[in-house]
Amino acid sequence: MNILLIGYGAMNQRVARLAEENGHKIVGIIVRDSSKSYPYPTVEHIADAKDADVAIDFSNPELLLPLLEEEFNLPLVIATTGEKEQIIDKLKSLSEDMPVFFSANMSYGVHALTKILEAAVPLLQDFDIELTEAHHNKKVDAPSGTLVKLYDVIKELRQQSTPVYDRHEKSDKRTEDEIGIHAVRGGTIVGQHDVLFAGTDETIEITHRAQSKDIFANGAIGAAEKLVNKPNAYYTFDNL
Amino acid sequence: MNILLIGYGAMNQRVARLAEENGHKIVGIIVRDSSKSYPYPTVEHIADAKDADVAIDFSNPELLLPLLEEEFNLPLVIATTGEKEQIIDKLKSLSEDMPVFFSANMSYGVHALTKILEAAVPLLQDFDIELTEAHHNKKVDAPSGTLVKLYDVIKELRQQSTPVYDRHEKSDKRTEDEIGIHAVRGGTIVGQHDVLFAGTDETIEITHRAQSKDIFANGAIGAAEKLVNKPNAYYTFDNL
Amino acid sequence: MNILLIGYGAMNQRVARLAEENGHKIVGIIVRDSSKSYPYPTVEHIADAKDADVAIDFSNPELLLPLLEEEFNLPLVIATTGEKEQIIDKLKSLSEDMPVFFSANMSYGVHALTKILEAAVPLLQDFDIELTEAHHNKKVDAPSGTLVKLYDVIKELRQQSTPVYDRHEKSDKRTEDEIGIHAVRGGTIVGQHDVLFAGTDETIEITHRAQSKDIFANGAIGAAEKLVNKPNAYYTFDNL
Amino acid sequence: MNILLIGYGAMNQRVARLAEENGHKIVGIIVRDSSKSYPYPTVEHIADAKDADVAIDFSNPELLLPLLEEEFNLPLVIATTGEKEQIIDKLKSLSEDMPVFFSANMSYGVHALTKILEAAVPLLQDFDIELTEAHHNKKVDAPSGTLVKLYDVIKELRQQSTPVYDRHEKSDKRTEDEIGIHAVRGGTIVGQHDVLFAGTDETIEITHRAQSKDIFANGAIGAAEKLVNKPNAYYTFDNL
Repeated sequence: MNILLIGYGAMNQRVARLAEENGHKIVGIIVRDSSKSYPYPTVEHIADAKDADVAIDFSNPELLLPLLEEEFNLPLVIATTGEKEQIIDKLKSLSEDMPVFFSANMSYGVHALTKILEAAVPLLQDFDIELTEAHHNKKVDAPSGTLVKLYDVIKELRQQSTPVYDRHEKSDKRTEDEIGIHAVRGGTIVGQHDVLFAGTDETIEITHRAQSKDIFANGAIGAAEKLVNKPNAYYTFDNL
Repeated sequence: MNILLIGYGAMNQRVARLAEENGHKIVGIIVRDSSKSYPYPTVEHIADAKDADVAIDFSNPELLLPLLEEEFNLPLVIATTGEKEQIIDKLKSLSEDMPVFFSANMSYGVHALTKILEAAVPLLQDFDIELTEAHHNKKVDAPSGTLVKLYDVIKELRQQSTPVYDRHEKSDKRTEDEIGIHAVRGGTIVGQHDVLFAGTDETIEITHRAQSKDIFANGAIGAAEKLVNKPNAYYTFDNL
Repeated sequence: MNILLIGYGAMNQRVARLAEENGHKIVGIIVRDSSKSYPYPTVEHIADAKDADVAIDFSNPELLLPLLEEEFNLPLVIATTGEKEQIIDKLKSLSEDMPVFFSANMSYGVHALTKILEAAVPLLQDFDIELTEAHHNKKVDAPSGTLVKLYDVIKELRQQSTPVYDRHEKSDKRTEDEIGIHAVRGGTIVGQHDVLFAGTDETIEITHRAQSKDIFANGAIGAAEKLVNKPNAYYTFDNL
Repeated sequence: MNILLIGYGAMNQRVARLAEENGHKIVGIIVRDSSKSYPYPTVEHIADAKDADVAIDFSNPELLLPLLEEEFNLPLVIATTGEKEQIIDKLKSLSEDMPVFFSANMSYGVHALTKILEAAVPLLQDFDIELTEAHHNKKVDAPSGTLVKLYDVIKELRQQSTPVYDRHEKSDKRTEDEIGIHAVRGGTIVGQHDVLFAGTDETIEITHRAQSKDIFANGAIGAAEKLVNKPNAYYTFDNL
């Protein structure tokens, strides 16, 4: 595939490296400051990358949204976070003319984890649920966006759920509706998410471990490989 | 509920204790050697337990099969292992006249694990699968029956799967079709089963831990509580 | 051994059952309310249990402390929590005349975990430490006393340590001195304690899992078996 | 530091990248085939790298051993595996004239794990031990060299230990002397080693997880940083 990269930060630099290792070609990049030097030709508009088969975006709403207003026709893999609703609305309208894929988390494993949860939660109605994530010691926000997504999946299925972040100095028993949320921080842990179902004398635990941020880049490349052969539509991991 | 116990070994002794703790009553037991002394009245035939609402069996084909040939009408929860096909055939024919529940593993959590696997395996087609179980140091068979069941669930969905029990002194790479099977033994571990899905830079692991054999007794009691209100039919955890 | 039980709550009832299963004999119990009916003879004073080889205590300061003021000579295994300093002082003075064993946590495995930590912490100076415990959903205090003990062991070796109980809505990076403390609650989990050392691209995790409260009863019985052959002195798991 | 690299395979390429990121300089490399093109100047003899402060070796006995026979004086960090005894003998004799560090596994965490094991095994004499390692699906040998090292540490302390690689189709109980050894293979797992101590109703588990092969490169660089300030002697992680 010939790939146009929208954004050239840490994630799309990984995309470039991994795409080339898999025989793809980076035919252009769109960056905010095109005066710097880059290993690939810069273009200003999506339509300028005439030989591109697909665009992969890991950028931000400031760069992405104006580009999406322009005239072009190219399969799009979009991973920008922020301004989620506005971006999805725009992508859905674009998807009448081209195939468009969007996911706020490009890890296929995390997507699979959410689908496994959708199967597990209704099966394990009498089990207490606790969520734990672990990330490196430089991460400033807690809990992680992925944990929040897992919580949302559970909340949809157990609507009375309420999150509990600190049990220190409380002296009440856990309620059925509680979902304990634990954010572990240390070292260079790339990302671990753990869903514990605790019942009477038995537990089921489902754990996702990321070993490298490559999973996000590979997830985007994999989505692009499938997307280029798809009819015009709006895609997520659910229907790709 | 008034419960008739078929067999009075370690498992049905647990059933008796836990059933009574939950307000149920043991109205009789069927044992091979009724000359010994028991804390409950012994009966010889299922039909003799006139005030029973349900029978719970943790016995063996030698005791159970002749009993099933007799005349009676009582909801049945059957956990005997061995002679599986013959028992299921008989139970299915009995189920025209009474509700009948059968499971070779009465732990609800293990059942849930198999259903979660059925959701997970198709989602994780590019992931290698490895199975590990851990049990106490007195267990003579390996791998556990439950692990074999998990393997069968996977095999149904990935038909080319082949089990590998020992990688020591092999010097070949793992093939895609391999499913490594590992039996850990030590101490008094009640039972742990772990399914590892290992992909590119990410893994998903699903672990069931049993803390007490009470889960099997409670699983049978819970099934009995539901079964007594069901129409005549053959039930498993899938349709109860 | 002939055993005198001080207290006859849930823990010493376990001690009685497990001691008898191992061929020991309960020759008496000391309880607050001797008007109730018990399966063993009640005595009022330690000295009254004339054929006892050892006393095992799982009681409370109100019952225990007055008894210790009396005249007697019997090896003592003491597990009362609360009034720790006063009890230890008294036991140390008694230990001139009889062997005395004290531990606030009778699980040998938890003791071993603290000793393993004492070896691990100095080795892993550049690793961040996080502590997680999991217990059943009826437990009202958090974190567990055992986790506090583990924290104290670490604090002794990394004196600048400070506990962090909640990272939700903070938006600062983890500091080196932080020790995150996480209390998971759910189902009937007997007790799990986990120490995570997270470094650059590698982690070491040490986990203790209790499967049954029997470990506390067995720990006391095991200590008693050793204690009866020891010279007069004050013992803990460190020197028994 | 100015570093001479002996060997320029995958591991020393990582060393070069990580050393430069930490402000060190690669002043030369020694390779077998110096006709190829490299990003650093090639030299033929250790003595030729006149401005080097230290040499870091990730090569093989064929390249390394002849170099060690030559005249030179430079602190050495040696990670070659194979011909272990011959290499150690030679390094010990060289260490009279220069500081020399040797380790077959440059991960500091794995070293720490062996030291933690040395503390844990004597404490947990009544616990069964089982060893499990997990690596990527391209690894051809099993069990891993690191697991063998862990086994050797245990064997030294429990001399009657015997390894068991396959329990499939055996129908004997585990013996006390058995150490079950399990090699999990899947995906791109960098390396995980797990030591399980299983006792009566409790377990202690010690797990090392490597997230990137960088730990080996960083271990060598860290050793080099310390070594350059040390007196002439033979060093390992035990005395560095």
